[in-house]
Amino acid sequence: MHAITCSGAGGPEVLEWTKVPDPTPGPGEVIIDVAATAVNRADLLQRQGHYPPPPGASEILGLECAGTISAVGAAISLDHIGERVVALLAGGGYAEKVAVPFGQVMSVPTGVGLVEAAALPEVACTVWSNLDLVANLSEGEWLLVHGGGSGVGTMAIQIGRALGARVAVTAGSKEKLDRCAALGAEVLINYRDQDYLDVMREETGGRGVNVILDNMGATYLERNVSALARDGRLVIIGLQGGTSADLNLNTLLRKNASVHATSLRGRPQSEKAAICRQVERTVWPWIHAGVVRPTVDRILPLRDAAYAHTLIADGAATGKVVLAT
Amino acid sequence: MHAITCSGAGGPEVLEWTKVPDPTPGPGEVIIDVAATAVNRADLLQRQGHYPPPPGASEILGLECAGTISAVGAAISLDHIGERVVALLAGGGYAEKVAVPFGQVMSVPTGVGLVEAAALPEVACTVWSNLDLVANLSEGEWLLVHGGGSGVGTMAIQIGRALGARVAVTAGSKEKLDRCAALGAEVLINYRDQDYLDVMREETGGRGVNVILDNMGATYLERNVSALARDGRLVIIGLQGGTSADLNLNTLLRKNASVHATSLRGRPQSEKAAICRQVERTVWPWIHAGVVRPTVDRILPLRDAAYAHTLIADGAATGKVVLAT
Repeated sequence: MHAITCSGAGGPEVLEWTKVPDPTPGPGEVIIDVAATAVNRADLLQRQGHYPPPPGASEILGLECAGTISAVGAAISLDHIGERVVALLAGGGYAEKVAVPFGQVMSVPTGVGLVEAAALPEVACTVWSNLDLVANLSEGEWLLVHGGGSGVGTMAIQIGRALGARVAVTAGSKEKLDRCAALGAEVLINYRDQDYLDVMREETGGRGVNVILDNMGATYLERNVSALARDGRLVIIGLQGGTSADLNLNTLLRKNASVHATSLRGRPQSEKAAICRQVERTVWPWIHAGVVRPTVDRILPLRDAAYAHTLIADGAATGKVVLAT
Repeated sequence: MHAITCSGAGGPEVLEWTKVPDPTPGPGEVIIDVAATAVNRADLLQRQGHYPPPPGASEILGLECAGTISAVGAAISLDHIGERVVALLAGGGYAEKVAVPFGQVMSVPTGVGLVEAAALPEVACTVWSNLDLVANLSEGEWLLVHGGGSGVGTMAIQIGRALGARVAVTAGSKEKLDRCAALGAEVLINYRDQDYLDVMREETGGRGVNVILDNMGATYLERNVSALARDGRLVIIGLQGGTSADLNLNTLLRKNASVHATSLRGRPQSEKAAICRQVERTVWPWIHAGVVRPTVDRILPLRDAAYAHTLIADGAATGKVVLAT
């Protein structure tokens, strides 16, 4: 098969369209003939050599895909061959075929095309697991989503609204904020000229934000903790602003608040499978009902993965960049 | 009535046994004729002027008591007069009488004397709410309790064991560690000559600790996060080692871990009442069954509150110091 491989650690230019051996399905795995994958920020880090794949995972980039099951390993019924599915991968999505534990395979939600569906697994599983399992976001609560125009951000706005929360977002351009508004965000903060701490104090009548979904890490830690309401939960899912910062425990304690940091990729297979089942049961019906939609910035050929990486690195995409085989 | 009042902010010498007006019960409150109260570290901070009582609370020290209901406010049945009870207070315990919302009044657990029972409300509610509600400590998990010989520590060991956890403690003397062992702690770490991080790595086969109950805050933050297992929860309930420290978000993220900081006193009345009900339902039966016992270092006259404060400040007590009227 063909795949995008890395000639070394570095910039987008290390990505190459090459011939590699076909994957074979281990016990409990299936092979998916990939119709499309999608770009995640973790792919950029892995390409740069900063985010090695977990033990046993493919060296090929790509954390999600949509496609058709073409082979099954031991303990998986042959009846599944031919099924159109999406999957959460530990790696290997930037290829024509990929092996994946069957527990991480999900149905294609009704009403979504197969290529477009490749935009869903990572953001749906990341957002649902963090907002529900980790933060227990509840009806009527305020959710602040940093990077509202990102793939995760555009999904977090919609799932936040579906859970009954009021949603605020930060983003770096009017175009992205307009898109966030269309998805249901009611407070739109341009981080280039507004301080989200001030805005959220004002918007919540001084009470603060119940849940923050943060992709920045260190640079936002102090202001995020300050922005939290009593019993607030800060959930950090990205460290684009650095990995280490001062935490004011006194502020946290007076608020009865908590700081969580999570990574979907690092979860064991059993947890990923459990999250996939819950996403199928909870998020897919919202998609079927039109409450939640995949947000696809554009669909590019998989061969153009390098260009797709520059789009994500430059913050030039709103929502997901999908790569079709 | 008589009470211990503060002549100003300062050392134990500011505590004075004086005459003050009797409290009157507000709507939904009862008056308890205090048989005993007990010392909490927060009392020392409040005496020093560092921990003002929450709005509406008594200026008098004292966060818990045992005694007899002698009067009731509006909406509380007269039938409760004469009941022997314990209570979680927002303040006012260092006195012959105290007013308290009825929701924070609990029965005296079977088999515990009234004076001794004054040692229970704060530690039972603090430990139960943090280990169960906040940390969701589960059977078979490792719990590390810092300050195992303190009032909270001695209760945390027992409740941790009752929840089915394996318990490790740190303390500063062999005497305290021996007492912790008698209460059920199986790993005993003298922080004066052992590094708990090394010990717990060894004891958990490198997997780390699932839940840490911490009273130190800043000085232990880095090592606590390092000591956590995957999905670990650090629960900070005291800041004896300072309020601000560097947090390594990358470590937290790779572990899918969380940092919580909580204060029982700052919780709204409704939450305190809910915790009291759950403690009566969960912890009191353990006491009745002999699985959990109050740990009382000694019982002193309330007039000797100043001496009791020096005992707590010096770490000279194992378990609670009770003050009887």
